[in-house]
Amino acid sequence: MSEFLKLIPPSEALSLLLRSLPGNEPCSELVDTLNALNRVTAEIIRAPHSLPSFPRSTMDGYAVRAADTFGASESIPGYLILAGEVPMGSRPTFAIHPGQAALIHTGGMLPQNADAVVMLEQTELARAGEIEIRRPVAEGENVILVGEDVQEGQVVIPRGILIRPAEVGGCMALGITQLLVVKKPKIGIISSGDEVISPEQEPRPGQVRDVNSYSLAALVTEAGGEPVLYGVVQDKLELMKGIAAKALSECQVVVITAGSSASARDMTAEAIAALGSPGVLVHGVNVRPGKPTILAVCGGRAVIGLPGNPVSAMVIAGLFVVPVIKKLLGVKVERPAKSCLAQLTVNIPSQAGREDWIAVTLSVSTEKNNEIADWMAEPIFAKSNLIFSLVAADGLVRIPADVTGLQAGEAVQVFLF
Amino acid sequence: MSEFLKLIPPSEALSLLLRSLPGNEPCSELVDTLNALNRVTAEIIRAPHSLPSFPRSTMDGYAVRAADTFGASESIPGYLILAGEVPMGSRPTFAIHPGQAALIHTGGMLPQNADAVVMLEQTELARAGEIEIRRPVAEGENVILVGEDVQEGQVVIPRGILIRPAEVGGCMALGITQLLVVKKPKIGIISSGDEVISPEQEPRPGQVRDVNSYSLAALVTEAGGEPVLYGVVQDKLELMKGIAAKALSECQVVVITAGSSASARDMTAEAIAALGSPGVLVHGVNVRPGKPTILAVCGGRAVIGLPGNPVSAMVIAGLFVVPVIKKLLGVKVERPAKSCLAQLTVNIPSQAGREDWIAVTLSVSTEKNNEIADWMAEPIFAKSNLIFSLVAADGLVRIPADVTGLQAGEAVQVFLF
Repeated sequence: MSEFLKLIPPSEALSLLLRSLPGNEPCSELVDTLNALNRVTAEIIRAPHSLPSFPRSTMDGYAVRAADTFGASESIPGYLILAGEVPMGSRPTFAIHPGQAALIHTGGMLPQNADAVVMLEQTELARAGEIEIRRPVAEGENVILVGEDVQEGQVVIPRGILIRPAEVGGCMALGITQLLVVKKPKIGIISSGDEVISPEQEPRPGQVRDVNSYSLAALVTEAGGEPVLYGVVQDKLELMKGIAAKALSECQVVVITAGSSASARDMTAEAIAALGSPGVLVHGVNVRPGKPTILAVCGGRAVIGLPGNPVSAMVIAGLFVVPVIKKLLGVKVERPAKSCLAQLTVNIPSQAGREDWIAVTLSVSTEKNNEIADWMAEPIFAKSNLIFSLVAADGLVRIPADVTGLQAGEAVQVFLF
Repeated sequence: MSEFLKLIPPSEALSLLLRSLPGNEPCSELVDTLNALNRVTAEIIRAPHSLPSFPRSTMDGYAVRAADTFGASESIPGYLILAGEVPMGSRPTFAIHPGQAALIHTGGMLPQNADAVVMLEQTELARAGEIEIRRPVAEGENVILVGEDVQEGQVVIPRGILIRPAEVGGCMALGITQLLVVKKPKIGIISSGDEVISPEQEPRPGQVRDVNSYSLAALVTEAGGEPVLYGVVQDKLELMKGIAAKALSECQVVVITAGSSASARDMTAEAIAALGSPGVLVHGVNVRPGKPTILAVCGGRAVIGLPGNPVSAMVIAGLFVVPVIKKLLGVKVERPAKSCLAQLTVNIPSQAGREDWIAVTLSVSTEKNNEIADWMAEPIFAKSNLIFSLVAADGLVRIPADVTGLQAGEAVQVFLF
């Protein structure tokens, strides 16, 4: 069977695919910062001004000249004349002269000449217009200095980073209400198979509804891409060639889930090969599920042939389609995969020399003070044709090619869906 | 200071808040299954029919009566008469009589009387119309039986579960193209403070732009809620009472970030207390950052007063606002928090008796074969007023109340933003 002539490890297959894609600048668009959540920055963001832009108190207390408090203690307090109260939200109209203090609230702007704040708890109103200081403060104590959060011109957000709530807030603090983000890459999705029908249709005996177009579309959406569905194509070479060429002209990536039979898979490979050069880079990956995976680059765009089994299609899309989307999004800042640590309930055998991905169901560990993990991972030993084995699963466990299985009781990293 | 009179642990504060909320049925709405990603199911979903609905081959090979292959081996193969080829996508028009076999492709429907499939690799075309079988198969081998994925009437997706790509695909497999999901709860967000201005405005000395409305709106969106922004309210009791009452009448939850001074916080507490009974349940939580947190239930709806500091506001929103949204969404199936294991770079001291949340930056571990973790966690020791300390952070590490700190080199769980 031609497709299994050379099986290469998934990591090698992925790096071959990624380095065969041109390093084009991603297209960008301007969006409101509040709508930029989960988008990727298309430019470096620098602070247009320092933050804070004025010295702020971090406490309720009295703004003072630190030198005036030196030597103050519980037994021999210092006394300062009250010069006024700092209004919230505006510059104090008075300065602090030697021997003076001003009432200030958290977030208030320090008056001129003040360089520290004494906490309210360490003072007492001695008599009208005079306060008692029972502890000395150092210069800058209980104060955020100008630029202590960020300096004017400083890079505050790099290019190629996913925007989270913190980035949204940070931009707003600087008055950056619009952001240049990377356009969502369009990912064309084609299902194939003479037996596959659209979900709205009632299957006749021998027919099954299309699952992959929709689970993949959802996965693409989660990864930051824009899915474009091209429906179900029958196992006819010319038909597939036509639809695939159309998808390739409209999208940056084309994902085809092959018909499940060997001949349908060969047909997919042939259709992909016809789309442009260099064409098929990998046909067959040393991973289970997902051995018959096809990775290609045609005219500078990635074309990925996934196995037709719904479970295999999802696992392989996670291994290859998601990283391609991240590359197209220009994601440069690596963040950890969503995962959790769990204790394996039973042994999982695995063939040495092949990478395996096993779906697992998680449950809260009932052993109190379980030192290994808060979660128990129960493998789902199901045929990869069963979509509901994936519905029952919380994530995947990877068994590297160089081990022959995992042991019950072992701690494993579960990559969460 | 009234607000610190009783400090209760965060977990206790949360369970008090959650059990004080009425257990109303969440409102639901019908959406297209493909748009149901990240929504929560509002009903139990049962399979309208079995899946597969016909016996399917999992291999390319020959459909046979298993009994006809008994005793077949490499040295003494069995011979069967070819009855035809199973077409993909329709019911075979012929049955398998004793001594017969039919060519079948992966996913094809077994002909009548066939009960197993012999893999192509274990056969040979002996002569025209006859195949040689070199291995016996058991009944059911290389076949998915009717209902092996799901049985008609079986619960395939529970109520109160987050819909992921697998659920989208699973529903499509069953022809369920629309789903009843929980309506996104509206979360009203109010910022307060005389010094706070809208991000579009140019701050004068003493003024700062509103950060919390936007970082919280993004967090609410991520948690599955619909943020409703009520803007910035000045520190005037009657003004705050009015806006808060309006927000409470329009939203299921109201979140108020208090002005940062003690008097502004007291004003927030007073405004919340006036919103309805039972009113304030918790004023002051034993956690850093976030001690001045206010938790209230007014007329059956949660009202949460967050500290004004942007970092504290985000940490506390994660601890209280997100779980309230999950409760309103009716999320019943617990899944692990997004986290990763990391090795701490330095010691983190912590005051015993108080729970601390420390922001950390992650970097890939440079020690090869680090047995503890792939990531290193570097704490960000910054004042909680600095929004960009949060932008630099990848997640939070929890230091429980009963320990006095964490040690350099220790493995810690980092809750990812």
